[in-house]
Order: sequence, then structure tokens, then C-alpha cells
Amino acid sequence: MAEDKLPTRADDFAEWYNQLVLKADLADYAPVRGCMVVKPYGWALWENITSWLDAEFKKTGHVNAAFPTLIPMSFFEKEKEHVEGFAPELAVVTHGGGQELEEKLVVRPTSETIIGYMYSKWIKSWRDLPLLIVQWGSVLRWELRTKLFLRTAEFYWHEGHTAHASAEEAKEEMYRILDIYEEFCLQQAAIPVIKGTKSETERFAGAQVTTSIEAMMWDKRALQSGTSHYFGQNFAKAFEIQYLDSSNTLQYCETTSWAISSRIIGAIIMVHGDDQGLVLPPRLAPVQAVIVPIFKTPEDKVRVMEVADRLFKELKTAGIRLKMDDRDNVSSGFKFNDWEMRGVPVRIEVGPKDVEKGTVALARRDKPGKEGKSFVPQAGLDLALKGLLADIQDSLLKRATEYRDANIHHPKTYEELKQVVQDGWAFSYWCESRECETKVKEDAKATTRNIPFDQPKEEGACIVCGKPSKRKVYFGKAY
Amino acid sequence: MAEDKLPTRADDFAEWYNQLVLKADLADYAPVRGCMVVKPYGWALWENITSWLDAEFKKTGHVNAAFPTLIPMSFFEKEKEHVEGFAPELAVVTHGGGQELEEKLVVRPTSETIIGYMYSKWIKSWRDLPLLIVQWGSVLRWELRTKLFLRTAEFYWHEGHTAHASAEEAKEEMYRILDIYEEFCLQQAAIPVIKGTKSETERFAGAQVTTSIEAMMWDKRALQSGTSHYFGQNFAKAFEIQYLDSSNTLQYCETTSWAISSRIIGAIIMVHGDDQGLVLPPRLAPVQAVIVPIFKTPEDKVRVMEVADRLFKELKTAGIRLKMDDRDNVSSGFKFNDWEMRGVPVRIEVGPKDVEKGTVALARRDKPGKEGKSFVPQAGLDLALKGLLADIQDSLLKRATEYRDANIHHPKTYEELKQVVQDGWAFSYWCESRECETKVKEDAKATTRNIPFDQPKEEGACIVCGKPSKRKVYFGKAY
Repeated sequence: MAEDKLPTRADDFAEWYNQLVLKADLADYAPVRGCMVVKPYGWALWENITSWLDAEFKKTGHVNAAFPTLIPMSFFEKEKEHVEGFAPELAVVTHGGGQELEEKLVVRPTSETIIGYMYSKWIKSWRDLPLLIVQWGSVLRWELRTKLFLRTAEFYWHEGHTAHASAEEAKEEMYRILDIYEEFCLQQAAIPVIKGTKSETERFAGAQVTTSIEAMMWDKRALQSGTSHYFGQNFAKAFEIQYLDSSNTLQYCETTSWAISSRIIGAIIMVHGDDQGLVLPPRLAPVQAVIVPIFKTPEDKVRVMEVADRLFKELKTAGIRLKMDDRDNVSSGFKFNDWEMRGVPVRIEVGPKDVEKGTVALARRDKPGKEGKSFVPQAGLDLALKGLLADIQDSLLKRATEYRDANIHHPKTYEELKQVVQDGWAFSYWCESRECETKVKEDAKATTRNIPFDQPKEEGACIVCGKPSKRKVYFGKAY
Repeated sequence: MAEDKLPTRADDFAEWYNQLVLKADLADYAPVRGCMVVKPYGWALWENITSWLDAEFKKTGHVNAAFPTLIPMSFFEKEKEHVEGFAPELAVVTHGGGQELEEKLVVRPTSETIIGYMYSKWIKSWRDLPLLIVQWGSVLRWELRTKLFLRTAEFYWHEGHTAHASAEEAKEEMYRILDIYEEFCLQQAAIPVIKGTKSETERFAGAQVTTSIEAMMWDKRALQSGTSHYFGQNFAKAFEIQYLDSSNTLQYCETTSWAISSRIIGAIIMVHGDDQGLVLPPRLAPVQAVIVPIFKTPEDKVRVMEVADRLFKELKTAGIRLKMDDRDNVSSGFKFNDWEMRGVPVRIEVGPKDVEKGTVALARRDKPGKEGKSFVPQAGLDLALKGLLADIQDSLLKRATEYRDANIHHPKTYEELKQVVQDGWAFSYWCESRECETKVKEDAKATTRNIPFDQPKEEGACIVCGKPSKRKVYFGKAY
């Protein structure tokens, strides 16, 4: 797979991305329009992502459940904005068991409607609240232009759906989840994100508030990497999700929903990847280190493999996710390129000289060439390797944060804004009118990303119209 | 939920089952024909089932991946028996994104076809073999008569799909998986199973050999609880899954597929459940023990809760999956019934007298009343509880095995066979002809379950036609 080189990011970022996904063996195109096959290496990465998130959700009182993949078409019509948002993207089942169906079914594009329907049956009293359910699975939206992981007709995700007795509790939940998403990005994916509120036009169909985390890719475009929505009573009224409060009065619930999808793999690729291929943060890497034994003669092979096998056992026991690359039909150089393409954080080389000296060579993926190479004793390699993996994790986040911050601009004029968003983000006051937002979109092809929670204390003037403005927003081109 | 009693199993087993699934809070009917919602308690049980199996598959070299939910209709037509088997059960997507589709798509009923298509792209050389992929997810078959967990239009499962260089290796894989399934049933689900080969008529559509594990339910009907198929080169030829062997000759692969589905939850219910509700084997129970604090006066409450909270922490730390039921709006009796309905293996009662004596009362779910009650010291409760859970696990398997064995009959005549299969299984010689199999089905409404691997050494005479017969088969009524 890895014998061909990628185009450089600078030459053709889109093509670099497309080829990397295939060559790093993460995914493949499916023989179904707009769909992908997530290959075992990509799925192992996704499992590391999901297992961390699943554990966090459980720690915070959430439980998992499963709702049907097919949803009656009529359910979508109960919430007006929701149907308008999703109608153009639906895949429709019209026949089942050889018969035309009386009511058409939709392959779920998201599950607010069917979960809302069930909640209306399950929730009776304030004692049943909050109800905090997460569903792991896939959904389908008939996208026209697709790109592996970033935008596919079917994609993988979790969708959290919660019902609460009060608006305050529901909003707290929305923010709590956004904090978990931020923590995931920072600690696990080594991706800095900005938490904030989406503009009205960028809101989820049917939501009263949509919050998001936004990340900057290598090409300086933004990727919305997770969203958490507050619906107020919109869905509760559409689906009659009601409860008796402690004074026996019937009340509507307040609901939320939230998601991170397999898109996040696209973010990991585009934030950390380099011209040699994928670069994975150690905490998420399916393979944290690969041992490459190097030898020419049969005698050397025996001596080298003895050490390599011993180290393999020691490191496995120490809990490191490890591969031994003892393929005999490819060269060491091919192996180096192959594991670099797959983004394995550390390569451990063991050659005849290492056997003599009691050392190994460690090559860190995030720093190519000599800069990233060190020679360490075999004794205590587990600790040295764990230290190195931790350092790589930190370095990736630091590098990505510096890169992002260096590409956030503070334009003084609208003219300057239009320029800077061609190659970075603008952080500017905005009057929050739809007119000014649309103007930027038309003039500069940039959208509002979010209004960050973290705001300067003083007020300012809208970068577009000059009117007084309370809050700053990020403008940028987006995926 | 648990205030109403179930019908007894003896009175109405089908209705006992239906009500139990709802009252034990495992699942609910979905507003989509034949589909179910797996509720959080049921899904937690499913997660315990899947995590054990997933770990075993990984230990034996399997990897997970994800293939699309939608499959082009034409894929089904490539393997003749396969399309005949599945055509009547397909749900068909005819419209996407507001347009009629050029090629209809099918919601996957099983994924041999699309995985076969991808394997033909991925497999080039003998070095790529074996390819051992598992997909976790749901599939959809348009069933006419449905029953929660046992037979629903959409159900949850894993499907393993493997490709091998030789028939021997593929068959070894089929048997290896069946062994894992057996181990799961015995060790985790406490269900004894019989491993064997299905008859030709009971084979999976497109398979050359179908093996199964068969379990006996309380009503003595059989439930096929897992299957493992050997396809020979059928799918490899239909999808051109070929590899270059070490002498550079193009060869067809040999493939297998295998599955255990959420049906197994139906088996757990029907093997272990009693007239009070669900009885869960401790290894799979989402809640292994529940603490019920018992008090009347506020003073007692303080003293009891102090001990209950301390024990809760100690047992949690010891790794026991635990609940504290400190609801203040229901009686202790209600709580007892509620947790019995949900099948929690052990109830820990803490009352004022226990506080005085330094004891607790343990009530084991599998032995109702006084027989299952013991009083043990609070000190060392973690070890006592672990011992009790292990004993319950063993007892459940022992009880189920004795029950099954007591209801396997060895009829001497065809007349006797017709009688015994009305209330048990018959283990009889069979000439392996379709005629004799059909005759039993017509005369006695019993089918061949499987031809067990474990066979007597001597040969015999077919119980139906009297012809010489090499192997015995199990006949029984089945779900």
C-alpha cells in the first residue's frame, strides 16, 4: 500500500487527504453511492475514540440504548424546522417483504423524532427525569458531494438524547457534554478546539441553541467537530413529552441532543498529518509502537529476533499497543514508510549493533529524520517508551495550538476581514444580524463558526456594518 | 413497572415471556412494524454479552470493521441460493435525496455480499490470508410474526466473515468459532448447548455446511442460539474473491460466516426465568447485587444508611456491579419484587437489626424464599458475595443442564417419537433424507435441530424409515 508517495499538502491538500485515507488503510470507497467502508485499522481508531467517550458518558450518569434504524416518514413532519432541514437528505424505504408499504419509512438521519416518541411513553413523573440516553450507531443523509470520513452518506456516531424537568438543567447538560467533547479533543485527540454558540442560521434543525467545538485544519479551514443542542420544549411539544411535577401538574420536558461523529477522524488526519502520511496521537493510536528488527545474515537474524521478541513481550506486558513487523518479503525502508504512512507514533529499530550495545533506536513519528531519533538502553525501555509517547501526545497538542493561534487574525476593517479569511480565521465583533452574516458569506465565502464562550470584556463595533456589538465571533471557511 | 404479576409459565408461557420483557425493562415495542427498542437495562445486558465475545474474537486474531447498511439489490442476485433465501425478507430503498434511485438499495439482511465484494478488491496474495473480519451492528429482515428479542425485523448481532487459502483452514475457523459460542453459552450465559451440523434444508442460504449450537428453553422448545457457516468457494466464485498462491497461481478463497444475535437474550430469559420474572446469570447481569436499606424511623434511617453507604463503596471497589435502592416513594416489598422481576442475582438487605449485629441478609434470586436467604457478617462481605455469585452462576448451569437432559428422549418407535417431541427433544437415528425430515415436520411439527458432533460409536436404523443410519440427530419443536 505505502510504496507510492502522497502529493504534498502544499501542492494539493484535497488529494493528499483522499490518498492518505486509502494508503493509511483507514477506509475504502463502498460500492454504494457516497458510502464508505471503515477498514479494520480505521475502525480500531474509532473504537479507541468511542471507548473513551462511552466511559465518560457513563461516569456522568448516561446509559446506552438502541432505537430502530427505520423511522416512519410522518414522524419527521411533526417538528416543522426539523422536517425542512432533513427532508432533502432522506433515504426512503417504500417496499418491505415484497409489498409496497402503507407508510414510507426513512433510514434515520438522526433520531430525535423516534426517541422523542418513546420518551413520551416512558416519562410519567419528575421521578423519571432526567432521562439520559446515548445511542451508538450509524445514520444516513443523502449527501451530494462526499469525502471519506468528512462527509459520507452513512456515517458513524453517538447521539445523546436527554429530557429534563427544567430549562436550567437541560442547558447545564448541553454545556456539560460540550466540556466532555473539549476534554476529548484536548487530551485524547490533541486537537485544540473553541467552544461557543452557533449563529441562528447555523443551528441544528429544530434547536433553540446549538453549541459547537470548532477546530482548525492544516489548510486553515474550520471543522465543526462536535455539537450539543438545547431544544427547549420544541420536541417535547411535537411529541408530547410530558411529566407530572412534584405538585402534580403536567409539564413539558426540556430536551437536548448532541453528537460527535466519525468526522473527527478527518480532523485528526488534517490537524496532525504530514507529507509522509498520518500522524496519530498516542492515546488514540491502534498501534502505539512498531518493532522493526533489522538484519542481513541468518546469524544476525537469530540474535536480533531474540532481543526483538523479548522486548515485544516486555512492552506488551507493560500495556503498550504494539506490533512486530517481521515481514520477510519487504525491505526495512518499505516498512519504515509503511508505518509512517499509518501514523504509528514510535518505531523501535533493533539491529545487530543494538544487540551488541544493549540499545534500541527510537524514531518518533511527529519529528521526521534525525531530530526525532534517539538511542536508548533496552533495560527500562517500557518506561522510556511511555515517557516518549506522553511527550509526543503533548507536542502534538502544542504544535496544533500554536499553529491555530498563529492563524487567527484580528482584522481592523471589513476589507481586511475578507482577505484574512482566505487563509485563516478572523475573530471579530459582529452585530449578530443575518444580513451581515450573509454578506460575509457572499463576499468572502466564509461563515460564522461560533460565538465563543470566552469573550473579551469590552464591547465593540460590528466588523461588517459598524453597529454596536456585544460579542465577537469566529469567521472562517469550513468543511 | 413491577407492581403487576406475570402469568405463570405453566399457564401461558408466550404471554409470560412477552410481559416479562416489558416489565423487566429490557425492551419495548417500536412504532415501526416488527421492530423493537432495546431499553437501557436490556442494552447493558447486550453490552456484557458483546464485550466478552469481542474480546475472544480479538484474542483469536479477528479485527472489527464497518460496511454499509445499504447494499445494491444486484449484489443479492450473484449467489443463487442466497437471493432465494433472502428476497422475501428485504426492505428496499427506492428513493434518496428526493430522487428515484437508478439501482434499488436493500437494508442489509446480512452482509456476505457486500463484504465479499470488498474482499475481492482487498485480497491479492496468500500473504493477505486469512482475512478475519467481524462487524457489529444490526440487520433487517421483514419478518411477519415477531416477538421481542426472539424474532424482530431489525435485530442486533455480530457477523464474522473470513476468507482462507484452503478448505481445511476455513472449516477449522468454522469449528473454532462454534467452540467460542459454546464457551460463551456455558461460562457466561449458563446455558448448555449442543454443537452440531444442520441438515441440508436447515442450512443458511448459500452455505455448504451450517453448524449450530442448540439450547432447550423452559417450554422444551429448541432455540438455535448461534450459527457458523462454511461456504466453500460459493461466495468466492460469485464475487471473484481470488488470491495468488505461493507458486503464483490464481486460486479461489474459501470463506465462512457466523453470528450470534440479540436472540440470545431471549434464550437467557426462557432458560433461567421463573414465575417472578427474569433470572440473570451473574457474569452477564448489568446489576449483580442490589442493596435495599430497610428502616422505619428517621433514627434508624441514619444508622442503616451509614452502613449501607459504606458497604456500597466497599463492594463497588471490589468490582461488583451494584445498585443502591434508596427510593423513598415505594415499599421494601415493592423493591424486592422489582429487582426480582429484573433478575438481579443477589439482594442485600440492611436493616436496624443488621446494624446492631454487624450482619446483612443476602437473598439469592435463583432460590426463592427461605432456601435462598443467608445472614453473613458485614466484614468480608465482598468475598462472601463473590463466592455467592460464583455459586449462582454454577447452579444456573447445573439446573439448566439437568432440565435439558431430563427432557431429551430416546424413542424406540416412530410413534413414540411423535409423542415425545410434543414435550421435549428426541435423539434418534436418521437416514439424512429430506423425505424423512419432512415427514416428521408434517406429522409432529418438529424439525431436525442438528446432528451433534458428539455421536455414539455404533450405527443404527432411521427412526422414520428404518433404513441404516450412521448418525443420530435431535428432533424438536423450535423457535
